[in-house]
Amino acid sequence: MQNYKLTIAYDGTRYQGWQGQGNTDNTLQARLEGALCRLTGEQVEVHASGRTDAGVHAAGQVVSFALAKPIPPDTLMEHLNRYLPQDMGVMALDFAPPRFHARLNAVGKTYVYRIWNDPRPDVFARRFRYAQPQPLDVAAMGQAARLLEGQHDFRSFCGLPRFKKSTVRTIFHIGVTRQGNEVCLRFTGDGFLNRMVRILAGTLVEVGQGLRTPESMTDVLAACDRSHAAGALPAHGLTLEQVYYDSIPNA
Amino acid sequence: MQNYKLTIAYDGTRYQGWQGQGNTDNTLQARLEGALCRLTGEQVEVHASGRTDAGVHAAGQVVSFALAKPIPPDTLMEHLNRYLPQDMGVMALDFAPPRFHARLNAVGKTYVYRIWNDPRPDVFARRFRYAQPQPLDVAAMGQAARLLEGQHDFRSFCGLPRFKKSTVRTIFHIGVTRQGNEVCLRFTGDGFLNRMVRILAGTLVEVGQGLRTPESMTDVLAACDRSHAAGALPAHGLTLEQVYYDSIPNA
Repeated sequence: MQNYKLTIAYDGTRYQGWQGQGNTDNTLQARLEGALCRLTGEQVEVHASGRTDAGVHAAGQVVSFALAKPIPPDTLMEHLNRYLPQDMGVMALDFAPPRFHARLNAVGKTYVYRIWNDPRPDVFARRFRYAQPQPLDVAAMGQAARLLEGQHDFRSFCGLPRFKKSTVRTIFHIGVTRQGNEVCLRFTGDGFLNRMVRILAGTLVEVGQGLRTPESMTDVLAACDRSHAAGALPAHGLTLEQVYYDSIPNA
Repeated sequence: MQNYKLTIAYDGTRYQGWQGQGNTDNTLQARLEGALCRLTGEQVEVHASGRTDAGVHAAGQVVSFALAKPIPPDTLMEHLNRYLPQDMGVMALDFAPPRFHARLNAVGKTYVYRIWNDPRPDVFARRFRYAQPQPLDVAAMGQAARLLEGQHDFRSFCGLPRFKKSTVRTIFHIGVTRQGNEVCLRFTGDGFLNRMVRILAGTLVEVGQGLRTPESMTDVLAACDRSHAAGALPAHGLTLEQVYYDSIPNA
């Protein structure tokens, strides 16, 4: 078997997520496996670095899979991009060592949450940004972000804790920046719990609105109770930007 | 009557243009007039700075109209943005002098043609960029652009000359820039003929591919014959960026 490492971008708007729950074929994984099967005649099983939720996008999701009959990566990439729908695109494809696994070998990820912070409508990027018309205090959000960085039990920020599984994670960096009317929250960590980025983003937005103080983040973390953090922001503002396998920048 | 100046952005993907030809209500003008009529109860007729073709976008189309019963611009803008579809948005609205007319008073416009110059798919902005995977020589395109600037008879670049109407126009500036995988062509002029920007963009792309020399632009202009220029590029890469009423930057 020849193992591959594939980097894929997708507009998640019309999909039930990377891997759906229950009876749905409308998933990104199913589309990619379908295209691989059509191309190779093999029943290929792909492994992503993680499952993105319904409506979440990716600029650099990483996927591993193996083929019994190897095809040169350039050829395979070109053919895949012809077979995949327009809202999915292979950005890179390479041979990978036999034991490479996109989920098990990942050492970190960067997610970006984009906010359109303007009372006027977001005509061009509305599928990729969450509209929050009220002014946001980006400096306060940055102060709050500092307190969330580091190794913590993020149970308060976990949508669905799994029985006996650890909710301790390390966030290496949370960037809070404004460019014109866009506020961008960039989270780099060793891993993220169910809905964690969207709940962190929602809590930071409440800090930006003055509904919470930056200092209160310490208490929210210490509570280890989901009810202490804010609600999750909508999926469409979230993009999985990059997955790391060797080292993490600024970690 | 109270006159207004309105600036509107739209994603033109699903419309038959600003003002359709023949039997269609699927136009941007019809949507705007419909929303104004619902809000005011008046049969409002709007005048745009110009008609954008089917599939062309705008970041700053300007429109004038008058109301018998004035409404404060802030209130009217807020209500309009609630009534308009998500792919249309009012960016600015002000009272205007009684004789202001968005088309007759315009002294210049900037159009932008965006090209995705990469063999990989354009997953996120594919509705707003024309994909041209072959490498483009941006320096040669810039040289060609210099020869197209100034006052010329642009008949070779006019899709549908109108009987006895002048095809002389002045282009103040054509910016050719590359940012990563995007090549951006920015045309500022006193007015543009039917399909002129898309035909200019198509001809510059052929220069970028090495199919024409930059110097040949002089002959194409002199020919005054449509068959000497390239075909028009697709509508979806084109955006009307700004309309000028007082002075034109760098003109």
